[in-house]
Amino acid sequence: MKLVIIGGGSSYTPEIIEGLIKRHSSFPVSTIVLVDIDEGYDKMTIVGELAKRMIEAAGVPIALSWTTNRKEALKDAAFVSTQLRVGGLKAREKDERIPLSHGMIGQETNGAGGIFKAFRTIPVLLDIAEDIHDICPDAWMINFTNPAGIVTEALLKYSPHKKVIGVCNIPFNMQHSIAEVLEVDPSSVRIEFVGLNHFVYGKKVFVDGMDRTQEVLDRLIEQVVNYSPANIVSLGWTETFLKSLQLLPNPYHQYYYKQEAMLAKDLQSYEQNGTRSEVVQEVEHKLFELYKQPTLHEKPKELEDRGGAYYSDVACSLMSALYNDSHEIMTVNTLNQGAIRDLPLDSVVEVNCVITKSGPMPLATGALPEQIKGDILKMKAFEEQVIRASLSGDYEEAFLAFLLNPLVGDEDRAKVVLDELLIAHQAHLPQFN
Amino acid sequence: MKLVIIGGGSSYTPEIIEGLIKRHSSFPVSTIVLVDIDEGYDKMTIVGELAKRMIEAAGVPIALSWTTNRKEALKDAAFVSTQLRVGGLKAREKDERIPLSHGMIGQETNGAGGIFKAFRTIPVLLDIAEDIHDICPDAWMINFTNPAGIVTEALLKYSPHKKVIGVCNIPFNMQHSIAEVLEVDPSSVRIEFVGLNHFVYGKKVFVDGMDRTQEVLDRLIEQVVNYSPANIVSLGWTETFLKSLQLLPNPYHQYYYKQEAMLAKDLQSYEQNGTRSEVVQEVEHKLFELYKQPTLHEKPKELEDRGGAYYSDVACSLMSALYNDSHEIMTVNTLNQGAIRDLPLDSVVEVNCVITKSGPMPLATGALPEQIKGDILKMKAFEEQVIRASLSGDYEEAFLAFLLNPLVGDEDRAKVVLDELLIAHQAHLPQFN
Amino acid sequence: MKLVIIGGGSSYTPEIIEGLIKRHSSFPVSTIVLVDIDEGYDKMTIVGELAKRMIEAAGVPIALSWTTNRKEALKDAAFVSTQLRVGGLKAREKDERIPLSHGMIGQETNGAGGIFKAFRTIPVLLDIAEDIHDICPDAWMINFTNPAGIVTEALLKYSPHKKVIGVCNIPFNMQHSIAEVLEVDPSSVRIEFVGLNHFVYGKKVFVDGMDRTQEVLDRLIEQVVNYSPANIVSLGWTETFLKSLQLLPNPYHQYYYKQEAMLAKDLQSYEQNGTRSEVVQEVEHKLFELYKQPTLHEKPKELEDRGGAYYSDVACSLMSALYNDSHEIMTVNTLNQGAIRDLPLDSVVEVNCVITKSGPMPLATGALPEQIKGDILKMKAFEEQVIRASLSGDYEEAFLAFLLNPLVGDEDRAKVVLDELLIAHQAHLPQFN
Amino acid sequence: MKLVIIGGGSSYTPEIIEGLIKRHSSFPVSTIVLVDIDEGYDKMTIVGELAKRMIEAAGVPIALSWTTNRKEALKDAAFVSTQLRVGGLKAREKDERIPLSHGMIGQETNGAGGIFKAFRTIPVLLDIAEDIHDICPDAWMINFTNPAGIVTEALLKYSPHKKVIGVCNIPFNMQHSIAEVLEVDPSSVRIEFVGLNHFVYGKKVFVDGMDRTQEVLDRLIEQVVNYSPANIVSLGWTETFLKSLQLLPNPYHQYYYKQEAMLAKDLQSYEQNGTRSEVVQEVEHKLFELYKQPTLHEKPKELEDRGGAYYSDVACSLMSALYNDSHEIMTVNTLNQGAIRDLPLDSVVEVNCVITKSGPMPLATGALPEQIKGDILKMKAFEEQVIRASLSGDYEEAFLAFLLNPLVGDEDRAKVVLDELLIAHQAHLPQFN
Repeated sequence: MKLVIIGGGSSYTPEIIEGLIKRHSSFPVSTIVLVDIDEGYDKMTIVGELAKRMIEAAGVPIALSWTTNRKEALKDAAFVSTQLRVGGLKAREKDERIPLSHGMIGQETNGAGGIFKAFRTIPVLLDIAEDIHDICPDAWMINFTNPAGIVTEALLKYSPHKKVIGVCNIPFNMQHSIAEVLEVDPSSVRIEFVGLNHFVYGKKVFVDGMDRTQEVLDRLIEQVVNYSPANIVSLGWTETFLKSLQLLPNPYHQYYYKQEAMLAKDLQSYEQNGTRSEVVQEVEHKLFELYKQPTLHEKPKELEDRGGAYYSDVACSLMSALYNDSHEIMTVNTLNQGAIRDLPLDSVVEVNCVITKSGPMPLATGALPEQIKGDILKMKAFEEQVIRASLSGDYEEAFLAFLLNPLVGDEDRAKVVLDELLIAHQAHLPQFN
Repeated sequence: MKLVIIGGGSSYTPEIIEGLIKRHSSFPVSTIVLVDIDEGYDKMTIVGELAKRMIEAAGVPIALSWTTNRKEALKDAAFVSTQLRVGGLKAREKDERIPLSHGMIGQETNGAGGIFKAFRTIPVLLDIAEDIHDICPDAWMINFTNPAGIVTEALLKYSPHKKVIGVCNIPFNMQHSIAEVLEVDPSSVRIEFVGLNHFVYGKKVFVDGMDRTQEVLDRLIEQVVNYSPANIVSLGWTETFLKSLQLLPNPYHQYYYKQEAMLAKDLQSYEQNGTRSEVVQEVEHKLFELYKQPTLHEKPKELEDRGGAYYSDVACSLMSALYNDSHEIMTVNTLNQGAIRDLPLDSVVEVNCVITKSGPMPLATGALPEQIKGDILKMKAFEEQVIRASLSGDYEEAFLAFLLNPLVGDEDRAKVVLDELLIAHQAHLPQFN
Repeated sequence: MKLVIIGGGSSYTPEIIEGLIKRHSSFPVSTIVLVDIDEGYDKMTIVGELAKRMIEAAGVPIALSWTTNRKEALKDAAFVSTQLRVGGLKAREKDERIPLSHGMIGQETNGAGGIFKAFRTIPVLLDIAEDIHDICPDAWMINFTNPAGIVTEALLKYSPHKKVIGVCNIPFNMQHSIAEVLEVDPSSVRIEFVGLNHFVYGKKVFVDGMDRTQEVLDRLIEQVVNYSPANIVSLGWTETFLKSLQLLPNPYHQYYYKQEAMLAKDLQSYEQNGTRSEVVQEVEHKLFELYKQPTLHEKPKELEDRGGAYYSDVACSLMSALYNDSHEIMTVNTLNQGAIRDLPLDSVVEVNCVITKSGPMPLATGALPEQIKGDILKMKAFEEQVIRASLSGDYEEAFLAFLLNPLVGDEDRAKVVLDELLIAHQAHLPQFN
Repeated sequence: MKLVIIGGGSSYTPEIIEGLIKRHSSFPVSTIVLVDIDEGYDKMTIVGELAKRMIEAAGVPIALSWTTNRKEALKDAAFVSTQLRVGGLKAREKDERIPLSHGMIGQETNGAGGIFKAFRTIPVLLDIAEDIHDICPDAWMINFTNPAGIVTEALLKYSPHKKVIGVCNIPFNMQHSIAEVLEVDPSSVRIEFVGLNHFVYGKKVFVDGMDRTQEVLDRLIEQVVNYSPANIVSLGWTETFLKSLQLLPNPYHQYYYKQEAMLAKDLQSYEQNGTRSEVVQEVEHKLFELYKQPTLHEKPKELEDRGGAYYSDVACSLMSALYNDSHEIMTVNTLNQGAIRDLPLDSVVEVNCVITKSGPMPLATGALPEQIKGDILKMKAFEEQVIRASLSGDYEEAFLAFLLNPLVGDEDRAKVVLDELLIAHQAHLPQFN
């Protein structure tokens, strides 16, 4: 069984290698090929060599190699993971800095920055999906590239390859943090998730089948639970908010429900330390220095500070569940098919699914709770607009995407920031030229 | 045929009297009774005496009287119009001032102010509707009280009286302004409206059945058309916005799509002249001085500066169309019934209807345009929340209404402004005590 | 203004000519061209000469001619009516005889026969619509060809020409019969129709805006109202049925709700007089003998026995309403757009519409009444299947259409009758070869 | 853990006892109480004594008793199963005989007979559910009483007790028959079921996650698979039918798609052997003779001829899955919640569910296949009507239920059979008196 990791030069790769080693008995990957673009070859080599040392140290029979020849790599693949960043961290820096410099949220996957990440990423991933469809049509494409929900919807709507699943670590993190606070095993916790990627809510928390939602809400009020990943500040929610919402928000919801405070915090942080991307570049630099050490033959602890921790763990669990037809319930980004009644059948939603060999089967969630119905419908309408603009490269479509985003909205500032980002990212937006 | 005007002491009443006189041959009202509360008796007497002079001068056989005994007045009524303001202009002043003082849009029918106007108004109008149902069950209740869409939905959902129609002058103003610019007769202009009260869009403009939408959009870009009523500043729309939207926005959309500029303008105006309510109080004072003049026997021109011009004209046209089973197409607030496919059947929507003796019959509008779908669904979810909170008087429900409103949103400032408004309006919010 | 009548050699043409003469002052058609295929040229000449005599006698300035050159005729047309019968009455004879000979309802527009009429007709009308789109793209295509609902849906879904309206005389007949019984003017009667062509129900009857539904239902129980057209027997409805249904059925509903009795009656009549088609051939023969008489210069009374009476009157009224942007409410077959909430937006439904210059605008009808919901949804699913089979010419698709039809249903007899009809109609079903 | 078996005197009870014994290690029931009405006490005693012998022979620590005091029995119950027959087999005899004597399908759960079974059963089960809600509100009510889908929907809509699941053996039988033909373990077979109880279709067949649907359809064509239960004749499906449908029908579909042949077969069988009920009474009599034998201490093989085989196995598996929060995928009757997009959220549907401690969670199934959409929507509309009539006892509502049923339909024969059944079942239909 062959796994191809596209964006293999990513600093996260050691985590996925660790996950594969750990699961080798039940999920026996025999071949791993890392793939990256030419500019990433050096980093990929560093990662690849570390990965080889990790495999060797673990004594598992996995052959690992790396290449920039994607088509060659895809031959006979059973799984393809995609974790790439078109334009690299430098592009992310612009996604963050330009909006912030106009007093708007500047963030990697939300608001104006997230829209541009989608604009750059969707055409590239559609290309990859087409290759997969041609070369290894039975392979599952496991996408962690953000904005994962929007990207996965674009793929499922416009790519001939239909075996695509989007993953995010947020539901996983929430499950684990809650397990920790309740002092139970994470596997005994089932949260009924409903919503969209980075806009997902927990409706109910069950522990061994017993409803303990209220208790978890109380702990959130007391701020005992904090399931924010490293890349997002956690400001805490007010008692009023949680008592009114009666749902578990995810950390990204802070950008929407606490926009003012988040903006103040982000601006302050920007003035002090530059963008998050710049901080991350620093972290990455240190990580690669570590990775180079020939004595290192395991994933270094420092990787956990990187922000996307557990992403790879989620992806490995998912691949194993698909391979083993395990019927585990996991929270992934997949076709709606009625799971969220109020959204189109072909929307991509982030909900609980039973994982089978033939793919994730979403659990029906009934009517959306009244208190989030409007926001989820609006957010999906925004996402659809981003996809339309990504494909058409049409200026008015892009402007509409900005206008529909709750972190942009205003027509005057939408135009200013859109125009500046279009120029800044010109090299990676051929469709807009 | 008897018409009862609840809120008869309003400065707008002479306009409705003029409308009834003008239409007397086709819509022969024989009796008009003005009704107001005790505090409004003096103003009602001034208005009533002017109205009597107007009727006499016109030589039409209408008997007019006024009373504070609502139940008595309702006997045998065929039409009841409701145009009232719980708490008067002093309450409006608070709706405007309190949000503005926290740097938020402070407006009579939108945002935090509009929510509180709904909270104060809905229980009062439900009482009136119950009286109508008991005393004159065949009467049409024509509601102009704002927020007209929300109030009408509350009545149609929770009142036993089902003959309720909400009216607004915005569609009428848009039709007339466009007719003026195109130099055609207003009656030859039909705009396909779709949306909610104060959140309605024009999809298409037809003149004598020919589609001239593009021409009107071009005129809007050149800022030749300006259909803002007196109470809203008109900042004009950018070319980019209109080319992207491809629909006719209404003046209130400025609060949503140009929130920053509107806030700046409103804050500046607030610092210079106080709230809009204070300006209006001044206007009203002058109007009543005019009304008192025994030589005045027509609606004074000065009333047109008041902001709600043509409201009464719309209401008179509507009542005449109902009475005559005229099958005219008018834009009113009524039960959806599928007219806007994406909204519940029992939502109140603002769409084109054929007016029959048995009520307005909405025209089906198909799928919502993609570019407004999300916002209309979100706005309706907000409106539903306002109604729930208005009825329950529950603090968390009210907080959710604030949180769901796009002009409030943020959980921190929602709480501050909500708490302040709850205290300020305590006297008119028995359900919250 | 030019009108093209495709199927101009039809015995109904004098009725449409009469309608155009009668309406000439408000709907001033200047040119009429009859079009037919070669086989119909002689009949068309007889009809054309009668029509010329009618026009001359009436003294209206209409130029009339006839041709078999469709493309030539379509130049500059403003309206095109289509009333044709692929395979003629001989084909209808087979549609009736073959099912009847297997003990099934054999009827022109319902059951197996209706399905085959659709199979033969849809490809031909798609061709015509394409010509219209190329040659006179602004023309309205007014289709009376049965099964009118299915045919119109096929055209609106698959033809580039979107200005297509389907008409039927059933709603018109019901309105007129009810007016007669209530002794009121037909124009004062408005029935709220909901459903599909030949499967439409009257929800409410209003006379001058007053609801008189119950009274009409009572009259139906007493069998005082009988609005069956000449081609359908009227067995009358039982009191139990009408009290349960609480809606006005149309005459074709007898095939569904009284299948046994109708079958018995039709079989008896078939044994005595042969198929309805054979009876009609006789009637037609006599009509054409009448039409030939050079002294005849008006529509002969005998035409009313023909079954489709008033079809042309409906079509003329509709064309006049379109031309004059009259905003009349008429019942036509048009795109749903939400009018019937439970059906797809792009279904064709038979509902009340406001007729404007830009087309019919359907009135929203809310949720389907519980007692007919299932049947209407099933019937639409059947209609969709007929269209799929008509276009694909696929045997399994055709079999499914039979299986889904409530007058066929059974898999065994479906196959027998399908196979026999496929052979019988081979010449007119190129798509199935 | 206590299990209460209502209808404990049923001949099926030994099967459920066997299932509980078999699963005792993973599903440790400690107390079983059989409950029946006075008339059933003797049979219950026979069954109870056999059950005691079975438990003793197996050496499992289960205390078993029986009583006619339902309320007493329910105390502290964790599970309550309901398998009862209001009016007994004598009532079933009427449900079968009366329609057959008028040349209509006379069947226990379909057509006129099934409607009357619902009329008799729903009020009784609502009473039981109310007792459960009062006495043991945490207990799961597992309903096998037919028509199981309709009855479960009535309970979930109108009972305060919401922990109700309906079960049927058809999906289980289909899974096992297919496993047998494919020579695989039944647990490796997953069929994607979609539809309603006794009107469910298999969309896809997966074996160990691999799609083998086409192969199974081919075997059905060759008539190698036959998954009909003992109470339904299996006529086999034609190749044309299966190639057109492209889905797996269930045995009850023969009543709808092969109505003529089934009716002929059933009438023949009725003439030869009397009703199925009479045959069953004979079988039951023999079974009880067997049960009485003090040497019998296991479920006798003869029970498998009884028709409802595996029902109890399904029920035991389900209770065990609920108890163990097992996340198995099972096919049960539960609230739709969007699983079948085209049906209301609160419909009861028969679909695949993940079984958790907090109940079954249905998997979303997307849009209904075109070829069954209409029939499923019609069948659900019929089911809703049966429930309305069951509760209201209104004659017109009952007539509508008959009219909407595809095995009745015709208004004339509907009335005749309805009237006869109403009189015949008078004693068990208090709501209709």
